[in-house]
Amino acid sequence: MSSDKNNQDILQRLTQTLEACKHASPETSYVAKLYSKGEDAILKKIGEEATELILASKERDKTRLVYETADLWFHCMVLLAQYGLSANDVLIELARREGTSGLVEKAARQK
Amino acid sequence: MSSDKNNQDILQRLTQTLEACKHASPETSYVAKLYSKGEDAILKKIGEEATELILASKERDKTRLVYETADLWFHCMVLLAQYGLSANDVLIELARREGTSGLVEKAARQK
Amino acid sequence: MSSDKNNQDILQRLTQTLEACKHASPETSYVAKLYSKGEDAILKKIGEEATELILASKERDKTRLVYETADLWFHCMVLLAQYGLSANDVLIELARREGTSGLVEKAARQK
Amino acid sequence: MSSDKNNQDILQRLTQTLEACKHASPETSYVAKLYSKGEDAILKKIGEEATELILASKERDKTRLVYETADLWFHCMVLLAQYGLSANDVLIELARREGTSGLVEKAARQK
Repeated sequence: MSSDKNNQDILQRLTQTLEACKHASPETSYVAKLYSKGEDAILKKIGEEATELILASKERDKTRLVYETADLWFHCMVLLAQYGLSANDVLIELARREGTSGLVEKAARQK
Repeated sequence: MSSDKNNQDILQRLTQTLEACKHASPETSYVAKLYSKGEDAILKKIGEEATELILASKERDKTRLVYETADLWFHCMVLLAQYGLSANDVLIELARREGTSGLVEKAARQK
Repeated sequence: MSSDKNNQDILQRLTQTLEACKHASPETSYVAKLYSKGEDAILKKIGEEATELILASKERDKTRLVYETADLWFHCMVLLAQYGLSANDVLIELARREGTSGLVEKAARQK
Repeated sequence: MSSDKNNQDILQRLTQTLEACKHASPETSYVAKLYSKGEDAILKKIGEEATELILASKERDKTRLVYETADLWFHCMVLLAQYGLSANDVLIELARREGTSGLVEKAARQK
């Protein structure tokens, strides 16, 4: 298995892990605890991680930039899993928008 | 090519598209225009999209939830590209954290 | 009337202006239009202005810092008015927390 | 002294308290500790409190709405104080924008 393939599969593997955490005892992991706290706790993390990503960018710290983006995407996946959704739904949506037409549509939406 | 494979490859294809947009004239696309406005314009979009994701979740609107996550991840990729980074770096970071040890590390970090 | 007194009264005058905007036609002002769009439009502005305040601070731009804080507080007042609340309720809450005990309480809450 | 007057003065009293905290030992109070952590710690709190305000509004919880707005404004004042600025500068800016012309200006800015 190539390294690239392995990295791409991480989203699928994480989806399975998160699904398992939804039914696990809060003490078993950070994510299981987050699920037990409820949706607002997850949404607060998304707000926090977005702020930290912005701060990392302003510091021009590439390592932290990747780190905070990973944190943000991870918590987005935690949120999606709560709704029975996954990163794959996001990839499908991104693929749907693809091509010039997609960028034009986006531009039109932004006015 | 399977549909799943196609969806996963979208992050790689988007990375290439964004790279091209960095050197394109602002009039050619939404992203090229965003790059011409500079880093703060991209960071504002990340703040906006995170807020919209939170609002979509509070409305329990699954379609909008996927849509806003796609918007957020897309703009994260726009930011990463500006630093010569890509979604692949994020996937590598997520893979690095994988496994029980990763979740424990995360939990430890959160205190 | 002293200048200081005048500046302090601005919160009361703004409260009255916002109250009037709640019942005005959307075309009459920026705020009346915002109310006609509904709560999520106001909340998006709060997310946006918080991000812009963060960016202004990272630029060490004092003028923009004051400007963005005014924008943020203004939109908080727009939100409060929608619930029949006002800046005065916020000042009462801040006064309630005052003193060492208040700061200790805050510190305790933060763990 | 009327109760209203007392509440308005809270911003001035808080400004003095914050000023004192800037030079105090981190152990003496929550704010002194926040200053010792630096600007990014304050900015993270602003991002967090903005998110919590949005969540409180979506829950239609008036008490929490006032509480979170107080938290947000308080941390804005902490940030302002770090730059030698205060709530009074924000009130002056809000007063400057006052009147129909101010709202029109704001509307114009928003395009």
